[in-house]
Amino acid sequence: MTDVVGMGNALVDVIAHTNADFPADHGFVHGTATMVDAPSAERVYAALGPATEISGGSAANTMAGLASFGATASYIGRVRDDQLGEVFVHDLRALGVRFDVPPATTGAATGRCLVMVTPDAQRTMCTYLGASAELRPADVDAAAIADAQVLYLEGYLWDEPDAKEAMRHAAASAHEAGCRVALTLSDPFCVERHQQEFRALVDHEIDILFANEAEICSLYDAPGFDEALRRVRHRCEIAALTRSERGSILVRGDELVEVPAVPINELVDTTGAGDQYAAGFLFGLTHDADLAECGRLGSLAAAEVIGHLGARPERSLAELAGL
Amino acid sequence: MTDVVGMGNALVDVIAHTNADFPADHGFVHGTATMVDAPSAERVYAALGPATEISGGSAANTMAGLASFGATASYIGRVRDDQLGEVFVHDLRALGVRFDVPPATTGAATGRCLVMVTPDAQRTMCTYLGASAELRPADVDAAAIADAQVLYLEGYLWDEPDAKEAMRHAAASAHEAGCRVALTLSDPFCVERHQQEFRALVDHEIDILFANEAEICSLYDAPGFDEALRRVRHRCEIAALTRSERGSILVRGDELVEVPAVPINELVDTTGAGDQYAAGFLFGLTHDADLAECGRLGSLAAAEVIGHLGARPERSLAELAGL
Repeated sequence: MTDVVGMGNALVDVIAHTNADFPADHGFVHGTATMVDAPSAERVYAALGPATEISGGSAANTMAGLASFGATASYIGRVRDDQLGEVFVHDLRALGVRFDVPPATTGAATGRCLVMVTPDAQRTMCTYLGASAELRPADVDAAAIADAQVLYLEGYLWDEPDAKEAMRHAAASAHEAGCRVALTLSDPFCVERHQQEFRALVDHEIDILFANEAEICSLYDAPGFDEALRRVRHRCEIAALTRSERGSILVRGDELVEVPAVPINELVDTTGAGDQYAAGFLFGLTHDADLAECGRLGSLAAAEVIGHLGARPERSLAELAGL
Repeated sequence: MTDVVGMGNALVDVIAHTNADFPADHGFVHGTATMVDAPSAERVYAALGPATEISGGSAANTMAGLASFGATASYIGRVRDDQLGEVFVHDLRALGVRFDVPPATTGAATGRCLVMVTPDAQRTMCTYLGASAELRPADVDAAAIADAQVLYLEGYLWDEPDAKEAMRHAAASAHEAGCRVALTLSDPFCVERHQQEFRALVDHEIDILFANEAEICSLYDAPGFDEALRRVRHRCEIAALTRSERGSILVRGDELVEVPAVPINELVDTTGAGDQYAAGFLFGLTHDADLAECGRLGSLAAAEVIGHLGARPERSLAELAGL
């Protein structure tokens, strides 16, 4: 039995340090993710300093984190049969994450995410989806989902019509088999683009919702976190709301758990904090932990990943968690 | 006027942490570099854990270091017009290093170097040269070399007949124009493969020789460092011999300077130590520093690069050096 099947945009991160003004100078809002076409991505890349390439993709990062905890994880996403696609596939499989969608032999190149890390350690992302946008319902292995405890979906998928259909198909397959469905809202602007649809999703199809403060406020047009929290309660089984250094709040029915953030020595790069929080949380949830322990594992995984460049853990999360 | 023109194998590094036995289990000698064909590289890659891709190539790393010091540097090497080639070209140009050889439109893919970093922070390298082996005399811009103070060559180039011819052509162009020629011996096994030819090169064509302890001993079949030092003296204008944590020894005619290593907090990955030592040394040499200062700058650059993963500096070497 698989613990978690993740589904999302398969991307290779191209990570570079920039000065504080670089994102705004190129038309990006600090701390957010913007989808761009290939020529725009080329323009930004040309202006970017030397970079490091590391496999990324939000849901794929979460599966990498789950594997690092010792969970069984698999992934659904699409790359092209090119060098970056090979890198993406290699890195997931090397972690023990199952990945069976064959690389596309035609169409756009493997997607990449230009990650601009500013001196405040925040990341601003400029994403060219490429082949990842071609994810189709036919790529969804319903049997693999039926065999899992949780299906984990990325809000970003909602931007592309085919990928959105694939996501709907996956969620339906999950529910049919009694597999819970988790969603991460991904980005406040992504939420803004699909607010009504995301609200309906949360009400009817999502069991476990992950969101940070900006995303949950954006979803419910809430003036502040407390109001957003009030509005999301009882709309899905569990809501896991992250608040950076202020930790996270978990709600399930009338239950509310406050989880502190894990202190770190040096904040290097916040890329992947949300992805790894979800990994820790889902590891706990699929291994019979209570909400507080799920939150603790989430905080611990997030703390590991923000201490270095890149969105996937460098140390064994199982060891860090004392498992 | 260009300070230094570098020439070498254009490679993207694929860096992964491995256990202590991984290199030997796959037939490699710990701490050395082995050239392999594409299928062998594929086999090793398949067994390797998740990796990080960073532009590499010994001489290209040295040019990156020179740019970080504020020198003007250019590079001669060959990539293919593929994604890794694009990464290589982007990263060099983003540093301000001039690179004009057009990417190959046919032939092998861009070369890559699988870097296995063992828990002792040593690196063992398995290189698939790919397009870099197709470097030809026609790629050598004699005018660009004539405009430089120093031409810096990689011993690794000697392994490929075309690249070797290109190297000879470049050295001849340099001497004709009064540009000094520097050579790094690259690897003890590379020296073993070409011992007689490298000895003749040092005697007749090389002005500045870079070598570590194993390489200089291999070149002269010397039983120890002192004997190797005795044998290399007076054979070329300057020999810069590096000895890891024991610093380096510089000899020029009857002059001998001992340079201490710069202490570091944490040894993470020795990849690029020799490349960056050469960068610091050549920056000093092309900016009228005396031998001791050249050595100090070399030690400082080497110390920066072994404190993190990857073979190119992450911090400004000019700032570190107080320039």
